[in-house]
Amino acid sequence: MMKLVENAAGRLVPAEINGEAATPFQGVGKHVPTGRKAAPPLRACQDYPADGDKVVADIKTALVNAGLRDGMTISTHHHLRNGDLVANAVFAAAAELGVEDLRWFPSASFPVHEPQIAHLESGVIHHIEGSMNGPLGDYCSRGEMRGMAVLRSHGGRYQAIQDGEVHIDIAVIAAPTADPFGNCTGDRGPTACGLLGFALADSQYADHVIAVTDNLVPFPCVPWQIQGNHVDQVVVMDCIGDASKIVSGTTQITRSPDRLLIAELAARFCDEVGIVQDGFSFQAGAGGTSLAFAIFLRDLMRERRIKARFVRGGSNQYLVDMLEEGLTDYILDGQTFDLEGVRSMRENPGHVNTSPFTSYNWHGKGNFASMLDAVVLGATEVDVNFNANVVTHSDGKLLHGIGGWQNCLFSRCTILPIPSFRDRIPVIVDEVTTLCGPGELIDVIVTERGIAINPLRKDLISAVHGSSLPIVGIRELKEEVEGICGGKPARPELGEKVVAAIKWVDGTVIDGVRAVG
Amino acid sequence: MMKLVENAAGRLVPAEINGEAATPFQGVGKHVPTGRKAAPPLRACQDYPADGDKVVADIKTALVNAGLRDGMTISTHHHLRNGDLVANAVFAAAAELGVEDLRWFPSASFPVHEPQIAHLESGVIHHIEGSMNGPLGDYCSRGEMRGMAVLRSHGGRYQAIQDGEVHIDIAVIAAPTADPFGNCTGDRGPTACGLLGFALADSQYADHVIAVTDNLVPFPCVPWQIQGNHVDQVVVMDCIGDASKIVSGTTQITRSPDRLLIAELAARFCDEVGIVQDGFSFQAGAGGTSLAFAIFLRDLMRERRIKARFVRGGSNQYLVDMLEEGLTDYILDGQTFDLEGVRSMRENPGHVNTSPFTSYNWHGKGNFASMLDAVVLGATEVDVNFNANVVTHSDGKLLHGIGGWQNCLFSRCTILPIPSFRDRIPVIVDEVTTLCGPGELIDVIVTERGIAINPLRKDLISAVHGSSLPIVGIRELKEEVEGICGGKPARPELGEKVVAAIKWVDGTVIDGVRAVG
Repeated sequence: MMKLVENAAGRLVPAEINGEAATPFQGVGKHVPTGRKAAPPLRACQDYPADGDKVVADIKTALVNAGLRDGMTISTHHHLRNGDLVANAVFAAAAELGVEDLRWFPSASFPVHEPQIAHLESGVIHHIEGSMNGPLGDYCSRGEMRGMAVLRSHGGRYQAIQDGEVHIDIAVIAAPTADPFGNCTGDRGPTACGLLGFALADSQYADHVIAVTDNLVPFPCVPWQIQGNHVDQVVVMDCIGDASKIVSGTTQITRSPDRLLIAELAARFCDEVGIVQDGFSFQAGAGGTSLAFAIFLRDLMRERRIKARFVRGGSNQYLVDMLEEGLTDYILDGQTFDLEGVRSMRENPGHVNTSPFTSYNWHGKGNFASMLDAVVLGATEVDVNFNANVVTHSDGKLLHGIGGWQNCLFSRCTILPIPSFRDRIPVIVDEVTTLCGPGELIDVIVTERGIAINPLRKDLISAVHGSSLPIVGIRELKEEVEGICGGKPARPELGEKVVAAIKWVDGTVIDGVRAVG
Repeated sequence: MMKLVENAAGRLVPAEINGEAATPFQGVGKHVPTGRKAAPPLRACQDYPADGDKVVADIKTALVNAGLRDGMTISTHHHLRNGDLVANAVFAAAAELGVEDLRWFPSASFPVHEPQIAHLESGVIHHIEGSMNGPLGDYCSRGEMRGMAVLRSHGGRYQAIQDGEVHIDIAVIAAPTADPFGNCTGDRGPTACGLLGFALADSQYADHVIAVTDNLVPFPCVPWQIQGNHVDQVVVMDCIGDASKIVSGTTQITRSPDRLLIAELAARFCDEVGIVQDGFSFQAGAGGTSLAFAIFLRDLMRERRIKARFVRGGSNQYLVDMLEEGLTDYILDGQTFDLEGVRSMRENPGHVNTSPFTSYNWHGKGNFASMLDAVVLGATEVDVNFNANVVTHSDGKLLHGIGGWQNCLFSRCTILPIPSFRDRIPVIVDEVTTLCGPGELIDVIVTERGIAINPLRKDLISAVHGSSLPIVGIRELKEEVEGICGGKPARPELGEKVVAAIKWVDGTVIDGVRAVG
């Protein structure tokens, strides 16, 4: 029987994850790290080709050269999203080589990675640590994976690698353009995806790094988003990704009148509390409501001639328009969500690459996230204490990753613009199914039925005093929604087995996810 | 009595440096590092201001906050060259705080740093590790410094920090532009110097990092050549440097007919052995002869419509012209030698920043230096075995640093265009006073009296067969020069004391420098 301990948020979490001791969540900013950063082995130039040509025949050869063996950790990245062909090729090669019990450590996985289920079944892969969008999440939720999944935020993934909590034996980096030395960029080439920041930590700390490209250029590949000095081998494939699926489908503005209302309320809220002023900054996520929010804000900025100092991406055509129109000095971009974002990153000096290190790493000397004036984020559930869930649905199924969500909660004003119910299931609940973000960091919930402000934010409550905004109490909101939906959401039927641990930004365990059914 | 051991080059070197065991040079590419990279302590965002504002009152306050105490190592950098005001301010503050026995670890020191002699005398500074140009070198040469100096190449300095051979307690980075979070750039501001690459290792590995600027801009300072996520504190000074002295005086083309002849011969040599062809690459140093070489090469490329893939800087107006004229795809720049270089770095996407990590670090997975088709470098002495000296004069005085010189020797064709004598003292000698570069890496010596090719390079010897170039044997050349100068150079009068150790690119000791007189 797995040992569970109660953490500072009152959640029962595993004391041990896949055989290693885990630290329960201690409260926001309470865990004090005492160690040192991971220390990769020293290498020497005499062991690498003087002409800089590190190209080898294929992935299988590269894995053999890298010393692949049972039980190793292999990392890949989600820059190519649902168009990625590299991770599948890596595990197909590993299977052919007959290795077993690998830990797959992707920055995120997508439906395209469904073939890994066969490798989980056959024993090639022991378990996955990383976001599992779609079928792999479903597989994990059913308790089928031998090991426990571990979900981390983008910043938490950097922290875990940097801190040596996750040791990567072999990192495989899909590179839309690369040179034979291993310099890589994502901003050009037939499978351009923008940037490669999610692979930064892997390149810095993995024992062995393999770059895989379908667009080899002569040295130097500029910009070198990933530095060849971190790369051991380069592999050329015919095609690393399906370009039509690389760009995310999340860049459609919502057409739902309710969601447009939510977005507009969120933008009005930012305006009325005084956030929207010259030199301000904001970040909006990738969903349709967030996009609509950004567009409302843009219109307001145009009208008032207000200029932001920076906006954070996920970039898309709307943020690029703002930059090119002079409505912001900079886009500080963590990933590009459409081809306009990719183009702008190549062309505009004000469109700047960031990484989980600069933006999100909690075990650093500060990060960018806490400097944001406002951030708007989604959630699957929010409870009456403003705690939020972003990974499981109310039925308990683990279907989403954390992304940069936890990291962004540290902004000066964290706003969740969400519908009050989905498919007649309340989104505002008594207690979230899975705790991903502590309520103390979540400032405002904006729904189509009103705006609830966290009682801790007395400043925001004063700021809206006398405003025409529909301010409501979160408990009243919850009751109203329960009335509409015919009561509280049904409790999911959960098993005893903890199938996944949810890490907080500092590497502690904030919650566990139980098997479903 | 200091224990000396004979290294693989036959030089007697100290077995111990300032109380720590040192590894004697084992031969090129022979030393196998077995350790791991230095592992800096973990930090956490809760200990840094959430608003990103790390500005403190002044340098003294910053040093106190950093926990300055006796015996610590403080690093500074030579981006501001002989115009630097920051290093002096740091040690003035340290002296006021009453600390003693500091190790000063500059990337290089200049005549402007002469005030440190008083701190060496008073005991504030114990010794210097780093290039000592001018008065500090003279002071060290006379045996006045309590500890032993250690001279490293730019790449060797990165290696030493990365490998944990030199632990930096406090790094102070002079930043021509910075934001309150600590992001820094050298490419703009009233004291713009180009780039800040020499401080990269310090920012990554020092326990504590202080950025000092006279041009504070709102977050984000873009580009962030030094990342604020590595910076603990920011200090604003009225003026960090004397702009008129930041740009090096080494960008004057030589007017000496002999040196112009040497430069022309070097360029003709590159042409005749087939180096100058589409897609080639070269690096020329900062001296007048090197500049003239680059100009001869440029003219030849223009005439033949040959385009380089990349040229390496130290950049200057001549390289910038080549880039802007389309004679090269890229300048891969390690430091800017004039304001045109600074401008181009800001404006041209093809003018790319490099660092000692990308370019020179021997304990990495390859570096850029070995990919150069040709490099031209200076030397104070060369011997009949093609060994070269770049730090001491024939009188034994230690007056120059190593810079990137040792690192550059790994190019495909290393050419030393040098006068055969200076002030009637032969430059071609029986044995160099100080060994900085092993002869096996030095391919060609070009003098006004002929070109000597290293017998190891049979390919180059064949390539010039039948050419009109004045090819000579190095021993004949030496004898001819001795005839002109009235014999061999006088042996310097050297003391017993080893005042400085010269490190090879891999951290081993290639030679020692004795006190003079």
